[in-house]
Amino acid sequence: MFNVKTVEETFEIIKEKFICMSFEYEEVSILDSINRVLHENVYSEENIPSFNKSTVDGYAVKAKDTFGASESMPAQLKLVPEVKMGITPEFVLNEMESCYIPTGGELPKGADSVVMIEYSEDYRDGFIYLNKSVAPGNGVIYCGDDVKNGDLVIVEGTVIKEKHVAVLASLGYEYIKVRKKPVVGIISTGDELISIGEKPVGSQVRDINSYALSVLVKSCGGDFKSYGIVKDIFAELQAVVDKAILECDIVIISGGSSVGVKDQTLKVIEDIKESEILVHGIAVKPGKPTILAKATGKPVVGLPGHPGSAFFIFKVFMERLIKQMLGQKDRDSNRNSIEVECLISQNYPSNHGREEYVAVKIQENIATPLHGKSGLIRLLADSSGFIRIGKNSEGLLKGEKVKVQIW
Amino acid sequence: MFNVKTVEETFEIIKEKFICMSFEYEEVSILDSINRVLHENVYSEENIPSFNKSTVDGYAVKAKDTFGASESMPAQLKLVPEVKMGITPEFVLNEMESCYIPTGGELPKGADSVVMIEYSEDYRDGFIYLNKSVAPGNGVIYCGDDVKNGDLVIVEGTVIKEKHVAVLASLGYEYIKVRKKPVVGIISTGDELISIGEKPVGSQVRDINSYALSVLVKSCGGDFKSYGIVKDIFAELQAVVDKAILECDIVIISGGSSVGVKDQTLKVIEDIKESEILVHGIAVKPGKPTILAKATGKPVVGLPGHPGSAFFIFKVFMERLIKQMLGQKDRDSNRNSIEVECLISQNYPSNHGREEYVAVKIQENIATPLHGKSGLIRLLADSSGFIRIGKNSEGLLKGEKVKVQIW
Repeated sequence: MFNVKTVEETFEIIKEKFICMSFEYEEVSILDSINRVLHENVYSEENIPSFNKSTVDGYAVKAKDTFGASESMPAQLKLVPEVKMGITPEFVLNEMESCYIPTGGELPKGADSVVMIEYSEDYRDGFIYLNKSVAPGNGVIYCGDDVKNGDLVIVEGTVIKEKHVAVLASLGYEYIKVRKKPVVGIISTGDELISIGEKPVGSQVRDINSYALSVLVKSCGGDFKSYGIVKDIFAELQAVVDKAILECDIVIISGGSSVGVKDQTLKVIEDIKESEILVHGIAVKPGKPTILAKATGKPVVGLPGHPGSAFFIFKVFMERLIKQMLGQKDRDSNRNSIEVECLISQNYPSNHGREEYVAVKIQENIATPLHGKSGLIRLLADSSGFIRIGKNSEGLLKGEKVKVQIW
Repeated sequence: MFNVKTVEETFEIIKEKFICMSFEYEEVSILDSINRVLHENVYSEENIPSFNKSTVDGYAVKAKDTFGASESMPAQLKLVPEVKMGITPEFVLNEMESCYIPTGGELPKGADSVVMIEYSEDYRDGFIYLNKSVAPGNGVIYCGDDVKNGDLVIVEGTVIKEKHVAVLASLGYEYIKVRKKPVVGIISTGDELISIGEKPVGSQVRDINSYALSVLVKSCGGDFKSYGIVKDIFAELQAVVDKAILECDIVIISGGSSVGVKDQTLKVIEDIKESEILVHGIAVKPGKPTILAKATGKPVVGLPGHPGSAFFIFKVFMERLIKQMLGQKDRDSNRNSIEVECLISQNYPSNHGREEYVAVKIQENIATPLHGKSGLIRLLADSSGFIRIGKNSEGLLKGEKVKVQIW
């Protein structure tokens, strides 16, 4: 019944089928650009610094005038008026002359270096006494040394972080073009589901996925549109899915746990015009009954109803899909995909033939697997992230190195 | 002139002087709670699951009725009506009876385990044939096994992540109390500064810090209020600082690079009623001329004007201060303080007696120091994060393990 794909096959399908989708852009203030994906190459339109700049508080000199200077035999240079911040000095420094210059001040013409103030004595006799020699270029950063006019500074597809805002500000960008966020429609289906504000009666459970998937979508750069809970009725689900496909860039349906629901989700997806089922079942634990389809050019995804399984599948497959659709260059540069290396606290057997995801708690570089049965809350609340055990592995040995993806 | 403190002394001062500041709380939707700091302990007001729940698709049984079952000798049990999702079964399962139950369905009274559907044969003769024995509890998660009514699930002071939203949704929390964000006033001072939209003339430079510090403040849970650029004039700076102290919870003044400005910032801070200078100079490179004061109970901070230095000092000291003022329990649990272990690519000498911060670029677990001179753009744009070289170290040897704080 299932047409099961491996993790690698699924990755390959995601890469092939959805790579060409390009999003529109919007302009945002650099103050609002954190975690957005840059839509344009950022070039410098100036030399930076735009002038020869002192990197220290001290005295501008011609280096050769300091050669041989020492504490016992300081160089004695005639003091000329000091350099002021933000003002280009109009004089030329002549031989055997020096002037005070603050950090960030512009080096006067004729000077080629700066002696730090610590190595000077000012006896207020019209001269400055410098007890250290410098080489040309000491204490100075030259015009264009940091960035040259026309240099490519940040490439399109970069995820903007705080450091980039400093860079953009220094280049004079107040606004930048970033990719529009893909809108992800989120649908929960299951007769047992109630909204989270309600008190469960009998064997009802709250609709966790609408909330968890929404914040997961936001964390990797998307916007969500929630369609709430839909009963396990074909026509109802079909109507909501059709609407979501029209309104969104990606549609996620997380199924109830009742048997047949997955098939119904599948039937609804198959029923969409021009739909193509790409994956029906992934060889993973948990989360095997995952569906990936393409309908009217958009990804339509059926996630397991169990919120724990849906969480894993989202982290492994959906983040990849969304980042790819955003054209994010370095898929791992988001803060939501940080990996840390740990040692596993115990032997952990795993089934050959499928990839397994195990939530772990990290304490001082030791990762302890959390056994969740089908529990959810303790598993998520106590875990630091999860590890992936490859499909060809028979498990992990105590003390083995593992990579934990933090969540 | 400086009253220089070590890094540890400064940390200690931050801890002692600002630990008691408590912020008000606000209620937010769990959908808007990511990266906020929880203001309340979150308890479960229910058992979860709230019923004995099947964790598999299969057949509910009394385990003892399956004992001895095998493929050649299956257990033959009378089929009774199936369990429906979300509905509590009203019947009691008797000896030698079984019923279909979906994953997530409620176990009928009398049953103690579930045999997976894979181990069953249904010949439509009114019986189900089970070819595997189970022990009581197999395929079932009991009421309260995940969380019990009254359990503490998430502690106050936790930084909310996506996994917590899943947990909060399952506990029925639509809204939660989070700490109000501390408002950080940001003032740039320096005669050479122009706003970033302007084109620098002569030795003017753009006001990078207003932007960089604003997004850094946001990244660690604060709100910013920007006071723009103030000229190096005592009365003007004083007026803006006084206003900022009234309106904000923390005030940051990033000085121009001109000599005497730091002293002026210092004088302005000293002039505030009931102000106390706690630190004037930290034994670090870069960023030595940092000021930390307490005025009318609030932190007032003088940061270096150089945006690179200000960036480092913010990451090391200001994030700590803001997180502490937010009462964040685990200071390192923010995504902006992820550390990864790398090997250093080359020998790196460092000066004894002060802690040094070095920007590095990471490639495949190798950290390469970036030599910035006083350049800024390449240093920030190309770096992955930074390392700290302790004050008692004389530097690093090629291949040595280092911890890189990602930025």
